[in-house]
Amino acid sequence: MNPIPLLHGALAPVVTPFTADLRPDAGRLARHCRWLVAQETGLAVFGTNSEGNSLSVPEKIALLDALVDAGIPAHRMMPGTGCCALPDTVELTRHAMRHGCSGVLMLPPFYYKGVSDDGLFASYSEVIERVGDARLRIYLYHIPQVSQVPIGLALIERLLARYPGTIAGVKDSSGDFGNTSAMLERFQPRGFDVFSGSESFLLETLRAGGAGCISAIANVNPGPIARLVREWKAPDAEAQQAALDRVRALYQSFPMLPALKATVAQFSGDDAWTTLRPPLVALEAAERAELRDGLRALGFAMPGLIEIDRATAGA
Amino acid sequence: MNPIPLLHGALAPVVTPFTADLRPDAGRLARHCRWLVAQETGLAVFGTNSEGNSLSVPEKIALLDALVDAGIPAHRMMPGTGCCALPDTVELTRHAMRHGCSGVLMLPPFYYKGVSDDGLFASYSEVIERVGDARLRIYLYHIPQVSQVPIGLALIERLLARYPGTIAGVKDSSGDFGNTSAMLERFQPRGFDVFSGSESFLLETLRAGGAGCISAIANVNPGPIARLVREWKAPDAEAQQAALDRVRALYQSFPMLPALKATVAQFSGDDAWTTLRPPLVALEAAERAELRDGLRALGFAMPGLIEIDRATAGA
Repeated sequence: MNPIPLLHGALAPVVTPFTADLRPDAGRLARHCRWLVAQETGLAVFGTNSEGNSLSVPEKIALLDALVDAGIPAHRMMPGTGCCALPDTVELTRHAMRHGCSGVLMLPPFYYKGVSDDGLFASYSEVIERVGDARLRIYLYHIPQVSQVPIGLALIERLLARYPGTIAGVKDSSGDFGNTSAMLERFQPRGFDVFSGSESFLLETLRAGGAGCISAIANVNPGPIARLVREWKAPDAEAQQAALDRVRALYQSFPMLPALKATVAQFSGDDAWTTLRPPLVALEAAERAELRDGLRALGFAMPGLIEIDRATAGA
Repeated sequence: MNPIPLLHGALAPVVTPFTADLRPDAGRLARHCRWLVAQETGLAVFGTNSEGNSLSVPEKIALLDALVDAGIPAHRMMPGTGCCALPDTVELTRHAMRHGCSGVLMLPPFYYKGVSDDGLFASYSEVIERVGDARLRIYLYHIPQVSQVPIGLALIERLLARYPGTIAGVKDSSGDFGNTSAMLERFQPRGFDVFSGSESFLLETLRAGGAGCISAIANVNPGPIARLVREWKAPDAEAQQAALDRVRALYQSFPMLPALKATVAQFSGDDAWTTLRPPLVALEAAERAELRDGLRALGFAMPGLIEIDRATAGA
């Protein structure tokens, strides 16, 4: 038996704050993580929406250490550890296991395109053998529109047959629920946890036996997402899903990552949150205003954020 | 005046040998570099065909140190230093300048897709400001089919206007000579050196005033490529280009990178060269035989390779 608890339900690819000179800001990150945990939301730090691939390996190691030091529970974390270079993926994955993270969300190596399933199998296999930790849970990260390296069903089948338990699940960010459905039917019954990459498929995923969602929007709207995870059998589940969809629809008019940071800045009253690392850029003032108006029209709030920020700003 | 000599002509994105347990093999790399330099070919180490993005930052730093220690001249090198994460790009670029490399070949940050020119400008700008070395020459690396992040003419214009001299040129690996032509017309007269990404456009590039080519095939066929650089005004220049094209056509029936390594293995008699790091995989035995037969039919050779290998194997 794996002594580390499984992560299910809602997870956020936690946005990473930067200082004015573009260094990662561990204090602000810990505060945002603390708020998300209080909202029953797991922490997929160093994901796509965390600017995870804009961080160096030493920066990610230092941030993970800082979060654990700040009391953020490692078993609520699923850090992104998949890099282009095998030694980087191994080092980050080992470090996550040293802290007892619940799992890791692992991109395939994403520089070379059109690579074979043999090559991708060898990549995951080398990482697993080198990390050599029976507690390791790898969640495969399928996000073809960004990585341009898809993780197909045949590859999952091979990996799952060779490394059952270690190949623990997938985040399907393809946006194609047909693909998620195929994964749910074929792999979820074998204990392979399927997470939707968007809360817009949350209810469908849970009804089909899936594990939950790992969604950008969970950075700003974690409470209602976590509530649907708890209440997906409730009579108003469809209405809850529709409310989540309305929030998502608003964000889809903006570049997602800067829009999330603008919202955290707005509700924490802390403008430092608007900084992004190149090549990503912050929203223009007019876009921020438009987003703010849209959120107001929806009656949107981030309850408790400002309290967490004030209570722990000095910590 | 920049005290470091300019690199022009033929360059190879030097293939990186690995040991059986997938560590980079500095000794074999130095021997291959020594052979390439003897063939009048510059060293674009850590490029796409070097599996450069399958190497970690510490590995690339150690390899560069080892090459310089082995007597490979830094002013013949143009290492690839463009990573997804700004601090990695800065660290590698600083290290290249510490050794006095002639320039660096810099991919844009390539994880996020659809990024704006503002974001890419900020990326290059931050690197230049942080490295802060007047000798720095950046060659922009346009390889949209792999990076999925193109470097357009408008971005080059902005960068060149802001950082003349530092923005020193481009490698155009788009395979679209129309794009290379546009760069040659618009930027080459301003001292911005345009390298074709393939020797198949070498004669056209040189006739249009370009700087040369940085080509995968220069790993195995450097002498004839360098000869066309010297003799592009000779009466038989078209025939020389046609001979280069016949070699290239053969390689295009195989996955390029494993085929290059198989050829180095064949002509050095050293099978260790066939190892690739995942996610790339070696040629099958049947493919190797087919490639060998094809090379034989062309009368292809790698003159002097085995002598360099024997003379310096213990060094």
